[in-house]
Amino acid sequence: MRKFLATALLGAAAVYAWPATANDGLVSIIKDPKQWGIQTGDYANTRYSKLDQINAGNVGKIQVAWTFSTGVLRGHEGGPLIIGDVMYVHTPFPNIVYALDLNDDGRIIWKYEPKQDPNVIPVMCCDTVNRGLAYSNGMVYLHQADTTLVALDAKTGEKKWSVVNGDPKKGETNTATVLPVKDKVIVGISGGEFGVRCHVTAYDTKTGKQIWRGYSMGPDDEMIVDPEKTTALGKPIGKDSSLKSWEGDQWKIGGGCTWGWYSYDPETNLVYYGSGNPSTWNPAQRPGDNKWSMTIWARDADTGMAKWVYQMTPHDEWDFDGVNEMILTDQQYDGKPRKLLTHFDRNGFGYTLDRVTGELLVAEKFDPVVNWATKVDMDKNSPTYGRPMVVSKYSTAQQGEDVNTKGICPAALGTKDQQPAAFSPKTNLFYVPTNHVCMDYEPFRVSYTAGQPYVGATLSMYPAPGSHGGMGNFIAWDNTKGKIVWSLPEPFSVWSGALATAGDVVFYGTLEGYLKAVDAKTGKELYKFKTPSGIIGNVTTYEHKGKQYIAILSGVGGWAGIGLAAGLTDPNAGLGAVGGYAALSNYTNLGGQLTVFALPN
Amino acid sequence: MRKFLATALLGAAAVYAWPATANDGLVSIIKDPKQWGIQTGDYANTRYSKLDQINAGNVGKIQVAWTFSTGVLRGHEGGPLIIGDVMYVHTPFPNIVYALDLNDDGRIIWKYEPKQDPNVIPVMCCDTVNRGLAYSNGMVYLHQADTTLVALDAKTGEKKWSVVNGDPKKGETNTATVLPVKDKVIVGISGGEFGVRCHVTAYDTKTGKQIWRGYSMGPDDEMIVDPEKTTALGKPIGKDSSLKSWEGDQWKIGGGCTWGWYSYDPETNLVYYGSGNPSTWNPAQRPGDNKWSMTIWARDADTGMAKWVYQMTPHDEWDFDGVNEMILTDQQYDGKPRKLLTHFDRNGFGYTLDRVTGELLVAEKFDPVVNWATKVDMDKNSPTYGRPMVVSKYSTAQQGEDVNTKGICPAALGTKDQQPAAFSPKTNLFYVPTNHVCMDYEPFRVSYTAGQPYVGATLSMYPAPGSHGGMGNFIAWDNTKGKIVWSLPEPFSVWSGALATAGDVVFYGTLEGYLKAVDAKTGKELYKFKTPSGIIGNVTTYEHKGKQYIAILSGVGGWAGIGLAAGLTDPNAGLGAVGGYAALSNYTNLGGQLTVFALPN
Ligand SMILES: O=C(O)c1cc(C(=O)O)c2c(n1)C(=O)C(=O)c1cc(C(=O)O)[nH]c1-2
Ligand SMILES: O=C(O)c1cc(C(=O)O)c2c(n1)C(=O)C(=O)c1cc(C(=O)O)[nH]c1-2
Repeated sequence: MRKFLATALLGAAAVYAWPATANDGLVSIIKDPKQWGIQTGDYANTRYSKLDQINAGNVGKIQVAWTFSTGVLRGHEGGPLIIGDVMYVHTPFPNIVYALDLNDDGRIIWKYEPKQDPNVIPVMCCDTVNRGLAYSNGMVYLHQADTTLVALDAKTGEKKWSVVNGDPKKGETNTATVLPVKDKVIVGISGGEFGVRCHVTAYDTKTGKQIWRGYSMGPDDEMIVDPEKTTALGKPIGKDSSLKSWEGDQWKIGGGCTWGWYSYDPETNLVYYGSGNPSTWNPAQRPGDNKWSMTIWARDADTGMAKWVYQMTPHDEWDFDGVNEMILTDQQYDGKPRKLLTHFDRNGFGYTLDRVTGELLVAEKFDPVVNWATKVDMDKNSPTYGRPMVVSKYSTAQQGEDVNTKGICPAALGTKDQQPAAFSPKTNLFYVPTNHVCMDYEPFRVSYTAGQPYVGATLSMYPAPGSHGGMGNFIAWDNTKGKIVWSLPEPFSVWSGALATAGDVVFYGTLEGYLKAVDAKTGKELYKFKTPSGIIGNVTTYEHKGKQYIAILSGVGGWAGIGLAAGLTDPNAGLGAVGGYAALSNYTNLGGQLTVFALPN
Repeated sequence: MRKFLATALLGAAAVYAWPATANDGLVSIIKDPKQWGIQTGDYANTRYSKLDQINAGNVGKIQVAWTFSTGVLRGHEGGPLIIGDVMYVHTPFPNIVYALDLNDDGRIIWKYEPKQDPNVIPVMCCDTVNRGLAYSNGMVYLHQADTTLVALDAKTGEKKWSVVNGDPKKGETNTATVLPVKDKVIVGISGGEFGVRCHVTAYDTKTGKQIWRGYSMGPDDEMIVDPEKTTALGKPIGKDSSLKSWEGDQWKIGGGCTWGWYSYDPETNLVYYGSGNPSTWNPAQRPGDNKWSMTIWARDADTGMAKWVYQMTPHDEWDFDGVNEMILTDQQYDGKPRKLLTHFDRNGFGYTLDRVTGELLVAEKFDPVVNWATKVDMDKNSPTYGRPMVVSKYSTAQQGEDVNTKGICPAALGTKDQQPAAFSPKTNLFYVPTNHVCMDYEPFRVSYTAGQPYVGATLSMYPAPGSHGGMGNFIAWDNTKGKIVWSLPEPFSVWSGALATAGDVVFYGTLEGYLKAVDAKTGKELYKFKTPSGIIGNVTTYEHKGKQYIAILSGVGGWAGIGLAAGLTDPNAGLGAVGGYAALSNYTNLGGQLTVFALPN
């Protein structure tokens, strides 16, 4: 009875005995499968866990262990971190952070609630999402919607420093997580639908001081590229590579945003990420290749200097924003061990590159319905080497302004959007949440006003015609062959990030709210559970007191769920996504919950 | 694969094959333990289920079967209804109603979202709660916050009729469920903190036409009492019984609200309920007994005529609002079978009466800390027969205006508030969620303005001193002896309604969010599970396809949780409740989720 005095009635912080962690350096946490220190699980972005207590044989028996309401509705992307005995949970705007005690059913140790101007909400293109926190050396990093980067003391929630990365009044916002690398924290920025010229910035983890910033476009020095040493497909990019690919000053409002995922290879000391679509969505307003939008970047972590770049979709005409994650694996390719980078782009091609040199090895469609390009030219001697072979019928540039180009596959949200894939070294397969959606796209002339939408196209989206009727697939992909190994049809886009484990199970969530577990080898469904709301979060696993747990955030939203999240009903609203996903309201509601699963005792 | 076309992509209503229910009359649904047709489970308000698949032996193994986010935050009171293969779930303001398909993991068959003026929110005293829907003959009845009573077609959600019961501009609102009795639906009203003169009204189930309305105070005809035939403790109440107990016109703004629970005895054709506190909370402003506030009422269901009344707290000085449920049981009393009515009042006394005659049989404290009265006078020959013996030290009237009377137990929210108790005929015990909270109370003069708070007292609340340190107990009560059989200490008030089952298990929820199952005989804890948010809903059970389920709404709020729900931090805010429950924010957040449990397959 006395215990009520201690646990219930006194303030939490006063009585909480802090758990001792053997070593709280991020690298050791990443190596420890019991913990989950950054959103992507590891620097390589594999989202693979060595835990195998839950495995293909017993996953059918897992049950809900405990749950937690975040107190916020709308789209919940990302997932919790687990450091020692503490779980860190974040929310969409207003970006609350909770430290939860795993020894006490998720009791709240501390809560950090930033004060943010709600005027940032209308300048967020695709819901009020946030892709989560990162941990490093006793600090939890939060990058708020309003672009304030905050370092919180992991034990107390006390703000150690904060720095402002952008200006929401100009349409600069943030939804991405951050990546701590050694003494720096790497952060991106959103605003491709507002004519922001986007960049990647490294801040000092201890002070918040800016160390370097590389833009996606503009003068060489502002991009931190070396005309002679930075290469594209093996050749130096040359002087003014970006400026030459834009008409006039259009690059100054050129987009190329950096709101996706970051990976890091300690051996090469390179940070990898993709840049987004050029602004506007009306290609007629920006002749040229619009470099280096839609590009895979490899930058030195210490200096920001770009080692190589590869532009996947020169002169984008479909909003095939190139920010999806770069998954770093060491695999056999063509009989030789290679340091690979695998990337599932919005444009529907699955790319495999040599991550040291940027050499393009594989570029194949990871959904057979992709029709805007026949293929990527793989002939090293061709003048169009590495470029997609665009089909004029689906070229919104060739069809022209104010023409509604119909039947383009994939839709603007791509064959895959931000929802991250996983890789299992046991199967050598990638597990990819995908969209199976096509679109009509009508570009129109738009003029730029700072802080106002700068979109310039009307879209409508619908399930890939003549297929299984659903809007998504969950697939297993062989990145060395460029082939789908198996594919599971889903009624809606799979907007949740996958997790692969040493137990030969792959987990993912669905927009209707199911957490699903499938066999890593065959794709056979082994378990499903209906969580409170649609899932657009990423599956996480951890071990606590000898037990493996699976954790997932529910809370429908994101671009696919924007109709529900923002209460929109016009089919063309939400940048064209509302109509296609209207049936989602038959399955689920707004939510904001964490559900944690484990095997029964 | 084809099935996506049917289930995912077409509108729900178009393809849904409606389940055939043998008989959808309410009486047969109440008799069928597989279904749950009204909030209270049965007309007697026992909250007892004959289902026993889940029992004391195996309840420790139950798991979460599925979950549903209501899409609304703040306090979720009441619980779902289950009619055939369909579950009906309601939300706090804006009072959305969902029909969920139990054959398809709670897929949404229809949704009804009323348009209500949000200005009703500030005139709701104790959070935006709603205690739920009722079903009768193919209709689902919703009584909205703004007092609009709506009849919805259970199959389609189509509004059949609606009628307005009160005026929020005068502070008239609704939080209560309704009780369908034969061809009438009985509804109450809230507003005791706004000087509303409250009433009970019967509407025609088919048309919404008003049949009768009985006020809690005022002229005899408006109360529907017969001075000769309506009795109090066996004697006729006499002419103008109410008017004589008020000074001047104070009765016109006299409160006595009717926002609690209703029970019905088909044999006597009587509807039972309690009336609430007299307005204002400053007793000096309303000399007299303030009849018939704080009264147990027995009214004829067809005519509204009161058969008997019993005023528990004449001239209330503590807001001991008398609306708690009346539980109707047929038990042995003093060696004879009696038709009993058991009521756990806010004032801390557990009353047992003969429900046919209104004879007072037992009145004992159900929490030993109750100190405002020594006892209820049980001497039939005493002039104070049936009245509480008030202790002047704790009498806010005797201490006087602008004096802070300290250490009153219970606090204004009572030893028990609206959270309903359960009764098991197998153990002959009542299972009562209680508060263990005391208060300081300082009355002050207040003037009446329609639609403005008319409270007139400053309160602060805290755990009962010198006890276990917690703010609640969950107890088993013997109503014939007036004795506590066992008592489980809880850190916070138990603000959730109990469920007793033939499996000898009793369920209840806690403000931190736990669903608990205890042994009906011993109180031994058999199971607990942390749901997403604090529980103030009532536990429900049903059977579907041969499986027993337990369902509970989470979503912290109500009066106890008003600090969290409305974001209040001043300890005296929320009518004095904020300070006492401040530590709740260490355990839980706002939420709005249904969690459904079952035994594993
Ligand atoms: O260009 C941009 O700045 C930008 C930002 C974001 C974002 O910050 O969420 C998205 C997109 N673009 C985008 O194109 C897109 O498909 C998208 C989906 C989502 C999401 O979280 O569901 N965000 C974004
Ligand atoms: O006098 C009234 O009209 C009135 C209304 C309500 C209500 O409608 O919820 C409550 C109360 N009083 C009240 O005294 C009280 O303790 C209370 C608790 C709650 C709740 O839902 O938690 N409502 C109310």
